[in-house]
This record gives sequence, C-alpha cells and structure tokens, in this order.
Amino acid sequence: MNIAIVGIGLIGGSTAIRLKETKSFDKIIGVDKNEANQKKALQLGLVDEIMTLEDAVQHSKVILLTTPVDTIMQLAPMILDQVDKQVVIDMGSTKTNILQGIAEHPKRGRYIAAHPMAGTEYSGPEAAIPDLFKGKNMVYVDAFRTDEDAFDIADAITEQLEMKSLFMNAEEHDMHTAYVSHISHLTSFALALTVLEKEKSQGRIFELAGSGFESTVRLAKSSPDMWTPIFKQNRNNVLEVLEEHIKQLQKLHDKLEDQDYEGLYKLIKKSNKIKRIIK
Amino acid sequence: MNIAIVGIGLIGGSTAIRLKETKSFDKIIGVDKNEANQKKALQLGLVDEIMTLEDAVQHSKVILLTTPVDTIMQLAPMILDQVDKQVVIDMGSTKTNILQGIAEHPKRGRYIAAHPMAGTEYSGPEAAIPDLFKGKNMVYVDAFRTDEDAFDIADAITEQLEMKSLFMNAEEHDMHTAYVSHISHLTSFALALTVLEKEKSQGRIFELAGSGFESTVRLAKSSPDMWTPIFKQNRNNVLEVLEEHIKQLQKLHDKLEDQDYEGLYKLIKKSNKIKRIIK
Repeated sequence: MNIAIVGIGLIGGSTAIRLKETKSFDKIIGVDKNEANQKKALQLGLVDEIMTLEDAVQHSKVILLTTPVDTIMQLAPMILDQVDKQVVIDMGSTKTNILQGIAEHPKRGRYIAAHPMAGTEYSGPEAAIPDLFKGKNMVYVDAFRTDEDAFDIADAITEQLEMKSLFMNAEEHDMHTAYVSHISHLTSFALALTVLEKEKSQGRIFELAGSGFESTVRLAKSSPDMWTPIFKQNRNNVLEVLEEHIKQLQKLHDKLEDQDYEGLYKLIKKSNKIKRIIK
Repeated sequence: MNIAIVGIGLIGGSTAIRLKETKSFDKIIGVDKNEANQKKALQLGLVDEIMTLEDAVQHSKVILLTTPVDTIMQLAPMILDQVDKQVVIDMGSTKTNILQGIAEHPKRGRYIAAHPMAGTEYSGPEAAIPDLFKGKNMVYVDAFRTDEDAFDIADAITEQLEMKSLFMNAEEHDMHTAYVSHISHLTSFALALTVLEKEKSQGRIFELAGSGFESTVRLAKSSPDMWTPIFKQNRNNVLEVLEEHIKQLQKLHDKLEDQDYEGLYKLIKKSNKIKRIIK
C-alpha cells in the first residue's frame, strides 16, 4: 500500500518522516510542483520517489494533501475525479470553502478533512522534523460525510502520528482557528512591521530584544505562500477577530491616554485569566 | 559586605539565587512590604534575613531596587537621603522619569540605573530561578552620571550574573524598550482579552490552541502590579508604539477587506525580514 504526499513541506515532510519510522506504507511517493523541493525531499530521504500528481494518484491508496490551502481548493475536485477506492486526506488549515467546493462530488465520501494542530514558523522540506505531531490534536471536520472505511484509514495514520482526535463542523473549525491561530500570525506580522519600521531611524533598537519579544514575533517568520491563502479562505472570520483585536488594543490605548491606570490595571488583570488555559 | 534586595520577586529573587552561588556577599538582606513574600523568601532560602528598609540601608554596602517601577520612583530619593558611601542599583524597566526625579540629588553619583533584559511571565519570590540572567544584556543607563567606584561595584554584580553590558541614555532606553518589550506585553494582553471574550459564546475555542497561540499570548500571564506602572512611567513611548502597531494591524485588515491579496502577500513578506533579527 502506497501513500502520495502532495506538497512536501513542513507538514507533508514531517508526516513522511513519521510514516517511514512506523513502516506503515510500502512506498512514500512525493508530489511537488517545485523542482528544488522535489530534489531536497529525495536527498533528505523524506520520500522514496517523485511522481506527477496523476501517476501518484494512480499508484497510491492514500493521497495526502499538504499544499497551501488555495492549491488544495483547486486540487480537491480534480483528484476526486480520478479516485476510485482511494482515500484523500486534506491536512489544510481552512475547511469551509474547500468542503463546499466538493459537497456534491460523487466521490465526496473518499475525502477526509483533517487539520493537524501542529506546526512551526518554518516551511519547505528542510523544515520537516520528527515528532512534530506527537501528542497534538488532529481535528476531523465534518467527518460524518466520509465513508467509514476511508475514515478508518485516515484515523490509522492519526494514530501513527501519535495524535489525539477531535471532531468539529467546518464553520466551527474555521472560526476557532481564526481565534487561536490565524490572529496570532497577524499580530506577529504587524509587530514585526512596527519594529522594523522604527529600526530605520533607531539602528540599535533590536539590541534590547529579549525572549518576550521573540516569543510574540517569531510567527512573523512564517511563509506568505502558506498564510495569504489561509487569510483569503477564512476571510470573514479573520476580519472579525482582527477587528475585535484592534478594538481591545484601542481600549488599552485609551485607558493609557486618559491616564486611567485603574482601568488599565483591571484590563491586564482580566487578561491574566488566560492562565486558566495555558499553563 | 552585605547587599539589600528591595522587592523579592522574579528579578530580586533570581539575583539572590545567583549571588548566593557566587558567595559575593556576606549576607543577603531582604526587604519587602508584603509579609507573605517575606516568609516565602526566607523559606526558599533566597535571603538570609528580613529587615525594614531603613535598617537594610544602614547595614548594606549595596541596595538593589527590584520593586515595580512606581515604587522605585518613590524610594529612590528617600534612599539616597540615607546613603553615604553605599551603592544603589535600580533594576527597573523604565528610567527617564526616575532619573529626572533624582537628577539634582547630592548623592546622585551613588545611583546606578541598570536594566537586566531578562524575565519571564511569572512574578513573586516563587518565580525566582537560577540562571535567569546568564548570557543576557544588562543595560546601563546614563552611566556617566554614576561615581566610578559605585559603577565598578555594580558591574562586578553584572559579571557575577554572567551578563553582557550595554550603555544607553535614558530617552533611548525607554523608547527602545517600548518597541521591543512593552508592546509585546500589550499585544499579548489584548490577544488574551479577544479570545477570552469569544470563549463566552464558543466554549470549545481553546481546544485548538497550539504552540503558536501560546507563544503570542503567554506574556498575558504577566502581573498588572508590575506592568501598569511600566506603562504609566513610559506613557508617551508606549502610546507611540501602540498607535503604530494598531496602524499596521489596520493595514493588514484593509488589504484583506479589499481582497488585495497581492498587497497582503507583500506585507507578510516584508515582515519576514524579522528573520534577520531573531534566529
């Protein structure tokens, strides 16, 4: 039984590393439109061979989609057209639009929408690492729309990756990820832009940067190729959370401007409730 | 030779741990207005004994100020009034206002303004940890205003803490810390408030929170007792950076709202330049 990994970057490559360890598949076939990535994936031993998408679909039981989400959006219906008993697993970060696009497809049952809640700020095959997924959540989206045998195959991979399973519908998933993942990237991008701008007039500004700064800005190293499509696919939710976040920043700003230090203290104290969530 | 540590929390306590290791002082005297903190500091062995501020100043060669910055602002001139040949080291996060308050004090030369660029989101004596300062920067502010023998004593402590030294003037320091430390805390506070608000209507929202979210929101666990005074003391710089940051977020928002994905891509790409700064 072979698996095709379409898009051999951080997620695809890290999945490949783990599936090689567990020897779950006879062959891991890589598909990537970028030739440099193809070469690197072979060199790093992430995949056994490179094929075109068409050949890979033909020769695999499982097709794993780990490209940017706009590419998944295009590929999903095309691949389902070529599928018989195979299983297509979409590991992208947004779901609503993509699932709408294949809702009426006769092979819809072969498609599993799954989102591994794991990642780093790095991308490309060289970003792939062992144990990226270990102990993290795999979110299955609209899993009731998937054939039982197809789901079982996907869930066996989730087990190989040593992940826990969660279930959600698409709207819930896309809204929740906007709040606990997409917004974090936007704040990091904006923070990096803010400080890089100031650096132009204040050369030494980064000398004082410590771990707190690094922590809030590290996601700004994330790839625009991956993130622009995520914001595009999840536009409404992302706009909502961004507007709410700007409102909260403006509230902190206004308390400080008005020298209302008791009000500022109360807001900080309230935000401390996040302790309940992150240890 | 004794040292008095005024405010036995994360910074004071972590300094005490290291100075005990290096046996640089005969006795470490703790001063803290909070009785629970006094007890904990003794129990944890951070300090050898607890004294009132007046007694501690009397019995110590070095007085280290590690309270919130509004307390440092009040204490600095009072302590200088009681000082003869002693050395007062201010380890707070803001400097301009405090140094203005003692600019004409006859004992100004005994005062060293130093800011260790190290910390965590935790506070209190139990937050004190070994090696908090190791390899980090100690920023000396307006060091030319300090007597040479007093500076040498402070710098010997910096060496004990295994820190590197940097020199700046007060305005530069307060502006730079606004950009690479204070704003990071404000974005975290605002992000926590944003998501906590949404949780009220969407109970499960935190199930999907991963390491990216944690990274950008962990500073929201920071103490309002410490941070409200920092924002107050550094109000103008903090307002400036906060306004700039909101502007950058609004720019990202507008690109997305206008569906200008090329523009959004370019902004993200530009923010990636932060790679140059953080590895």
